[in-house]
Amino acid sequence: NISQDIDHILETQSALAVDLGGTNLRVAIVSMKGEIVKKYTQLNPKTYEDRLELILKMCVEAASEAVNVNCRILGVGISTGGRVNPREGIVLHSTKLIQEWSSVDLRTPISDALHLPVWVDNDGNCAALAERKFGHGKGVENFVTLITGTGIGGGIVHQHELIHGSSFCAAELGHIVVSLDGPECLCGSQGCIEAYASGIALQREAKKLHDDDLLLVEGMTMKKEDTVSAAHLIQAAKLGNTKAESILRTAGTALGLGVVNILHTVNPSLVILSGVLANHYVNAVKDVINQQALSSVKTVDVVVSNLADPALLGAASLVLDYTTRRIY
Amino acid sequence: NISQDIDHILETQSALAVDLGGTNLRVAIVSMKGEIVKKYTQLNPKTYEDRLELILKMCVEAASEAVNVNCRILGVGISTGGRVNPREGIVLHSTKLIQEWSSVDLRTPISDALHLPVWVDNDGNCAALAERKFGHGKGVENFVTLITGTGIGGGIVHQHELIHGSSFCAAELGHIVVSLDGPECLCGSQGCIEAYASGIALQREAKKLHDDDLLLVEGMTMKKEDTVSAAHLIQAAKLGNTKAESILRTAGTALGLGVVNILHTVNPSLVILSGVLANHYVNAVKDVINQQALSSVKTVDVVVSNLADPALLGAASLVLDYTTRRIY
Ligand SMILES: [Ca+2]
Ligand SMILES: [Ca+2]
Ligand SMILES: [Zn+2]
Ligand SMILES: [Zn+2]
Repeated sequence: NISQDIDHILETQSALAVDLGGTNLRVAIVSMKGEIVKKYTQLNPKTYEDRLELILKMCVEAASEAVNVNCRILGVGISTGGRVNPREGIVLHSTKLIQEWSSVDLRTPISDALHLPVWVDNDGNCAALAERKFGHGKGVENFVTLITGTGIGGGIVHQHELIHGSSFCAAELGHIVVSLDGPECLCGSQGCIEAYASGIALQREAKKLHDDDLLLVEGMTMKKEDTVSAAHLIQAAKLGNTKAESILRTAGTALGLGVVNILHTVNPSLVILSGVLANHYVNAVKDVINQQALSSVKTVDVVVSNLADPALLGAASLVLDYTTRRIY
Repeated sequence: NISQDIDHILETQSALAVDLGGTNLRVAIVSMKGEIVKKYTQLNPKTYEDRLELILKMCVEAASEAVNVNCRILGVGISTGGRVNPREGIVLHSTKLIQEWSSVDLRTPISDALHLPVWVDNDGNCAALAERKFGHGKGVENFVTLITGTGIGGGIVHQHELIHGSSFCAAELGHIVVSLDGPECLCGSQGCIEAYASGIALQREAKKLHDDDLLLVEGMTMKKEDTVSAAHLIQAAKLGNTKAESILRTAGTALGLGVVNILHTVNPSLVILSGVLANHYVNAVKDVINQQALSSVKTVDVVVSNLADPALLGAASLVLDYTTRRIY
């Protein structure tokens, strides 16, 4: 009837967005305009069963809350660490950052429980979709995003579409290797940019320094119970700790060379850095491009994302873009 | 009239293929089936004027010979070192391998002189087109080719089409960096796979060894007037020269890591190695993939090209493919 039709028009078309990271499991209601209407955060459980149960519980809660805030949920979009087959909605394989997370069908149980369509892609690809719909990537034909957080993820947009690759393993940009030896990586390789420049890598180096009593300098205090983190390393460098500076310089060079390799492979016009370390690295990346990239690719723009939360917004855009165009 | 029509039917649709390399300038008549009907080779002149003059002279000669061998020339396809704008038929920029070869319009003068359509792309991209039309890449959706000769070139096919990039600088795979320092490259950077694994790089290392009297081992002879080359280094390693072996091992590792980086960026199902050093490197590349690539990309096939001459065949396929589909 007419009053129901009007209700429908007044509702905001929205998505349930799920982000599965190394630490947290988050669910949000995201509107068509990219507004995060409501957000729920829990620690990501360590086992497959607990994780799936919690995802369902949080989604059901968010879906019922959506009615109260007048949001019509079009579907569920899931961003997760690891390799994903987005056609089937399956997590193929994850590094140790998320355990018990290989060969996991996410679409079937969630779609069955919520009676909604479900889309899944990895966090890097979701971040790229978020940039395409809401961020610096809007209207840009070829761009790359690199997320420097706990790990390093990436997504590549070519002719306005994601490159997924022949086995859904494209844009695993954290595992670009920039050294013939180099530090060991969680993936089993060594010399990956993730092993030099991720939050985990910086934390590893900070701990090493701290164990040798070489981390803290004047102006820094740490309580016994504090966990040594990447932030401490950055703070120490700013306060003149030359060993910390040198570690961060190497990390920036490694990340910059990773970007140079991306430029020489797919030659995007734009590189968008996001994640907690993006601001820290942006100048180092620009410097390395200036020093080591072919002149023809130096026209590339390197910017820091202006999105509050690329993973959640990307998970949402899996829904918001795909439901409106009705094709995968 | 009818007899002319029959003549036309009996003619073989063919292309004039031009290959501009660091050493040679070659022109060939190539048939629709990929047969090299006739080939002309000259040294590539050192100046722009001499080079363009010789290209025109050789093309005119080949075009008139085409009539004698009953080949109908549909157009001219040019493969050249350097970055190319294939839409405009312009060489944008070349490394020192080909001098006076930046901002060069090839299409206009050649098209004017020969009254034929002219297509231009870089050697790596041409090699990829050759593999797509005549080689292992036939029908393969996503593949990469890497040409290890004097330099290292590459081409990337994604969804059956070349990736050219936002400034025609995609697939500059020779300048993927795999070391935070590493040997200097002709491009001005350092640690590029071309600086480790190209013919020039191996020759540079062979010369260094020879200067220190460390190259020749039992079973090898060299005349005073012989130029030390990559082949000498490979021969020395085979005869037990451990220094030569170690240099080649590093070169193979560097090339293999370059391929790993390509796999983690565009995730092709197939990597095709071509060029004089392809057979030498193929096992090293496979080994490095096994050791350092993510498990999800290890399904990639790595093969050596079975094409006689990817650059010439690719130059020809610029013509043979584009004239039949009538779009760029
Ligand atoms: Ca990714
Ligand atoms: Ca190329
Ligand atoms: Zn790795
Ligand atoms: Zn280089």
